[in-house]
Amino acid sequence: MPVVVQQFERADADIIAGLAEAGVATVHEAQQRSGLMANHMRPIYTGAQIAGSAITVTVPPGDNWMLHVAIEQVQPGDIIVVAPTSPCDDGYFGDLLAHSLRARGGIGIVIEAGVRDTRDLTAMGFPAWSKCISAQGTVKETLGSVNMPIACAGAIVHPGDIIVADDDGVCVVKRQDAATVLAAARTRIDAEEDKRRRLEAGELGLDLYDMRPRLAQKGLKYV
Amino acid sequence: MPVVVQQFERADADIIAGLAEAGVATVHEAQQRSGLMANHMRPIYTGAQIAGSAITVTVPPGDNWMLHVAIEQVQPGDIIVVAPTSPCDDGYFGDLLAHSLRARGGIGIVIEAGVRDTRDLTAMGFPAWSKCISAQGTVKETLGSVNMPIACAGAIVHPGDIIVADDDGVCVVKRQDAATVLAAARTRIDAEEDKRRRLEAGELGLDLYDMRPRLAQKGLKYV
Amino acid sequence: MPVVVQQFERADADIIAGLAEAGVATVHEAQQRSGLMANHMRPIYTGAQIAGSAITVTVPPGDNWMLHVAIEQVQPGDIIVVAPTSPCDDGYFGDLLAHSLRARGGIGIVIEAGVRDTRDLTAMGFPAWSKCISAQGTVKETLGSVNMPIACAGAIVHPGDIIVADDDGVCVVKRQDAATVLAAARTRIDAEEDKRRRLEAGELGLDLYDMRPRLAQKGLKYV
Amino acid sequence: MPVVVQQFERADADIIAGLAEAGVATVHEAQQRSGLMANHMRPIYTGAQIAGSAITVTVPPGDNWMLHVAIEQVQPGDIIVVAPTSPCDDGYFGDLLAHSLRARGGIGIVIEAGVRDTRDLTAMGFPAWSKCISAQGTVKETLGSVNMPIACAGAIVHPGDIIVADDDGVCVVKRQDAATVLAAARTRIDAEEDKRRRLEAGELGLDLYDMRPRLAQKGLKYV
Amino acid sequence: MPVVVQQFERADADIIAGLAEAGVATVHEAQQRSGLMANHMRPIYTGAQIAGSAITVTVPPGDNWMLHVAIEQVQPGDIIVVAPTSPCDDGYFGDLLAHSLRARGGIGIVIEAGVRDTRDLTAMGFPAWSKCISAQGTVKETLGSVNMPIACAGAIVHPGDIIVADDDGVCVVKRQDAATVLAAARTRIDAEEDKRRRLEAGELGLDLYDMRPRLAQKGLKYV
Amino acid sequence: MPVVVQQFERADADIIAGLAEAGVATVHEAQQRSGLMANHMRPIYTGAQIAGSAITVTVPPGDNWMLHVAIEQVQPGDIIVVAPTSPCDDGYFGDLLAHSLRARGGIGIVIEAGVRDTRDLTAMGFPAWSKCISAQGTVKETLGSVNMPIACAGAIVHPGDIIVADDDGVCVVKRQDAATVLAAARTRIDAEEDKRRRLEAGELGLDLYDMRPRLAQKGLKYV
Repeated sequence: MPVVVQQFERADADIIAGLAEAGVATVHEAQQRSGLMANHMRPIYTGAQIAGSAITVTVPPGDNWMLHVAIEQVQPGDIIVVAPTSPCDDGYFGDLLAHSLRARGGIGIVIEAGVRDTRDLTAMGFPAWSKCISAQGTVKETLGSVNMPIACAGAIVHPGDIIVADDDGVCVVKRQDAATVLAAARTRIDAEEDKRRRLEAGELGLDLYDMRPRLAQKGLKYV
Repeated sequence: MPVVVQQFERADADIIAGLAEAGVATVHEAQQRSGLMANHMRPIYTGAQIAGSAITVTVPPGDNWMLHVAIEQVQPGDIIVVAPTSPCDDGYFGDLLAHSLRARGGIGIVIEAGVRDTRDLTAMGFPAWSKCISAQGTVKETLGSVNMPIACAGAIVHPGDIIVADDDGVCVVKRQDAATVLAAARTRIDAEEDKRRRLEAGELGLDLYDMRPRLAQKGLKYV
Repeated sequence: MPVVVQQFERADADIIAGLAEAGVATVHEAQQRSGLMANHMRPIYTGAQIAGSAITVTVPPGDNWMLHVAIEQVQPGDIIVVAPTSPCDDGYFGDLLAHSLRARGGIGIVIEAGVRDTRDLTAMGFPAWSKCISAQGTVKETLGSVNMPIACAGAIVHPGDIIVADDDGVCVVKRQDAATVLAAARTRIDAEEDKRRRLEAGELGLDLYDMRPRLAQKGLKYV
Repeated sequence: MPVVVQQFERADADIIAGLAEAGVATVHEAQQRSGLMANHMRPIYTGAQIAGSAITVTVPPGDNWMLHVAIEQVQPGDIIVVAPTSPCDDGYFGDLLAHSLRARGGIGIVIEAGVRDTRDLTAMGFPAWSKCISAQGTVKETLGSVNMPIACAGAIVHPGDIIVADDDGVCVVKRQDAATVLAAARTRIDAEEDKRRRLEAGELGLDLYDMRPRLAQKGLKYV
Repeated sequence: MPVVVQQFERADADIIAGLAEAGVATVHEAQQRSGLMANHMRPIYTGAQIAGSAITVTVPPGDNWMLHVAIEQVQPGDIIVVAPTSPCDDGYFGDLLAHSLRARGGIGIVIEAGVRDTRDLTAMGFPAWSKCISAQGTVKETLGSVNMPIACAGAIVHPGDIIVADDDGVCVVKRQDAATVLAAARTRIDAEEDKRRRLEAGELGLDLYDMRPRLAQKGLKYV
Repeated sequence: MPVVVQQFERADADIIAGLAEAGVATVHEAQQRSGLMANHMRPIYTGAQIAGSAITVTVPPGDNWMLHVAIEQVQPGDIIVVAPTSPCDDGYFGDLLAHSLRARGGIGIVIEAGVRDTRDLTAMGFPAWSKCISAQGTVKETLGSVNMPIACAGAIVHPGDIIVADDDGVCVVKRQDAATVLAAARTRIDAEEDKRRRLEAGELGLDLYDMRPRLAQKGLKYV
């Protein structure tokens, strides 16, 4: 049954900002390597690094009607996450919808399908992560749902979950876990800084992580 | 039977220039969402936006001989459109052929196969849309045809059809329809300008396009 | 049996530098169109053009332990070449390993799997050619081998073979053939310079290469 | 955190049997075209048509340890549903595990990865739906979870959901919806029987479904 | 503009029957290796070998309405050929439509998308060549065209062209060329019979086709 | 340089027969999970299980000339292993070549490209493992090599290596390792027989392999 859920909780803006700063690779590690979308989800231009609350949308193949419905539900800082009900590469999202989404405070889109007008989106600085780029137009005939749990690019997304996206891809953080994940991410960042310095100085990972005994025990031979 | 067709009609240069300015997404919409090549056809660098008359070429897998034959048929403003007779990723086209093609007035290439020397092509500002980038060399042993109708990346192309290509992909406009399509494209551009302003100002697509009654009639529930 | 081979021969630095300058497309042609990796091996940023001696590594799916082992074997100018034992897209390599590899003098990585932290790698100017970009983390549980012959992206690589990589992809030159291939590459570069000038001046490939008689003999018809 | 959930509800055996009899295409339609796994999930042999309660399993790439853990949780009539934490084609499941699974009452496996020993599985009459067939062996080093919600081949699966699988693919029915979906499926089967007879007799769908007025209204022209 | 073309010419039944008997590989060779659809077009069961006149259909992604329209245009011996306007894997065709199509005399379907109810289709002996098998249902909202020229799986198809399909795939013969192609196919079959006997008797292709001198001239070395 | 190597060693017929009997999955495990070709290498019909000495062949895309050259080098029990020099799906091998190959004692073909006449090959009982089925014809213009080391579907193959192929795929055993691998395979078969009986009787892998303590140590929680 097509439905639009209008109420759901969002995480604190501070936590979301912290996750954006940490970035996808760190956040993904900080939550035990979970929540990553498939690597076919690529940014249309490099350099964007954002996080926001998910507005989830399902769309039929070749039909972008529900994007208009979804935009009304957007609050400042939100990211629209779109999954087609069957695989589709059509260009569901372009510059007009980007202007509309930005006017509501939306900061980006994640869509397991195509986007178009990528030159305009790039000029606007409006980031999109998508399965492909395609000019293929869509119709407005069939309903989907907004803010129901979805599977998008292999990840489960609930409305209000935090989407983190950068050049490495897209990661989903469950809203309830956001504070914990951010803390773990910050711990990891601090630990990495020290490791980075030591590795830059020429110390080997073999020694830094004390790997030699376990490698020998597993049977690695040097010849 | 391998054949080179030497005579065919081209569209007016003004119309072609107008289609280039309109761009792929608009042209594709202006002709009822037809003529778009598959989205695996990607530019080797972003930012180019061109249109030109198609010189069509079929090539055997791993054999670029017919590109030399095709270049002789090129007139200023033309775009070479290449389809292998069976799928092939080899690098059929590189900087030498680009110099030759440019010397004849050719302004780009669209090829459902590979190109190489992409650093040189980028430095030259010679745009190419291809299925992939590959250094794999080709032989010159087997014939194909020039300026026969072809299927390239899912689109039917006749010699003299207008090829429009930009960051969104590649679209084919039938020569006979070019003036009509351009007119429709310009109408669309004008209409979009107004819509863009209203959407930027925060008006929702739901209202701008009066979608609410039809959504309700289709059964969309808000909860 | 997991093994690390510590001794192998490398080609002369001058020859390696010459191959880097020649680039992938020329080197590939100079060795009779052999040694090219599959075109899914793409650089994470454009513009890098390098050559170096191969350190070969096999890794289990989802396990990057052997990269730490491999880095110890690196000498200045080397390139690590990584093949998973079964197809895997995980992000085996990121900024920490890049710092470690660079500290040993490593100049790049070629991996038929994923890399991550691509923004950092780009900022560092540390080039990587990979099958994909993925933030997906890996474990350190299972051994592979270092400096055994491997098949990577369709090419056979022995330790000490020369890896040439640029925007066109990745090519492998057998160490024993390196001097011969370089000589052939330089001959080709010289020959191409003359051809480029003539093609730029408008001479057709049909005439430059004297193709017309053979085209006629093969049965090509002009209509 | 790797976890094994030992308690969850299952649907009634009668309902599950009814869904098996209805088959994938009918069940998928009966629940508004939802719950279908991606079409790369194919049976290793044709003709099997089953339904059962899902035991969900996540496995690291190249590591099938958790299948052993999962089998202990199996009750008669269950189907194991396996999703790797990142894409992997390895052969996680073969004849030994099939014997073990069958000994617990398991009736099939659905895995978005590879299976092997397909000749033996076929001889046993033990059905499997998988992404591929691969002999590639796996290790037992890293944990995953059992009976947590997963995304498998684009579908969300909770433990106890009903998996319906046949030659057309795999469909997931939420446990709570099972009775309703079965009723809708049966209604659909009855309606189809009448339609089938009329279509077989030569009545056109255009007339049976009264499509002509709406086609005309949409603008379809007959020439 | 969506349109249904009701009149077009068909080839003689005798010629069509002859092409069916010759089969795909022979017909493809007999017309200079042209007209073959992409190899992702596979039969849902092995053993069918048919030929018929093409009814061409374009369908929007996820919308099978036009199949109902197309069936009305079918005459005994026809084959429906379906191309989506953008790539789609949905299950457009199942047992109800097969019964309807058969009732009109249709003998098969070729569709660059999905089919479902494959168990029923196999039991009916109703052959289908498709891109995939998928239970995914479709809507009836948007028009396409019937009996306009289409590009399907890389081949151009006009209504009335002859479709030849068997276990090796699908080949298109232009209606105007059908008699010529059949004659060439029969010549080829006769020639192959003699070759087959000689090869079975142990004569080498090297001798049968007198390849040795040309191999030597091309530079093949025996060591 | 194109070359045909006429002399190389083969393994003992008894060892080869033993490897055939063991099958792909067992042999692959017996040599530490190495040597397996990519899983896109599929048999054209199920049920064949063979092993033989490899005749290696490289072929240009769309050119099957070297198959004729290779067949002359075949001795009874050999299997031809074919790798295109760049990816190609064309139908290099059909019933005529199968008759010729069989007349020399060849027992099968493994080709990372297409085969055709699959109905005939199936009727002949001549097994083929290929990347795809395609009727696309090939030319005879350009040389490759016979019996040089090749990379085929991700595996390195030397002439005389043993190819094992069945429904699970294709595995390569180095000639020098063949006796050792066979011994290990037989040991494994014996061990599996006991395990199979115990698993069939309901013993869990968790107990049979004593996995519980290590699972607990790794942190698996039961809830």
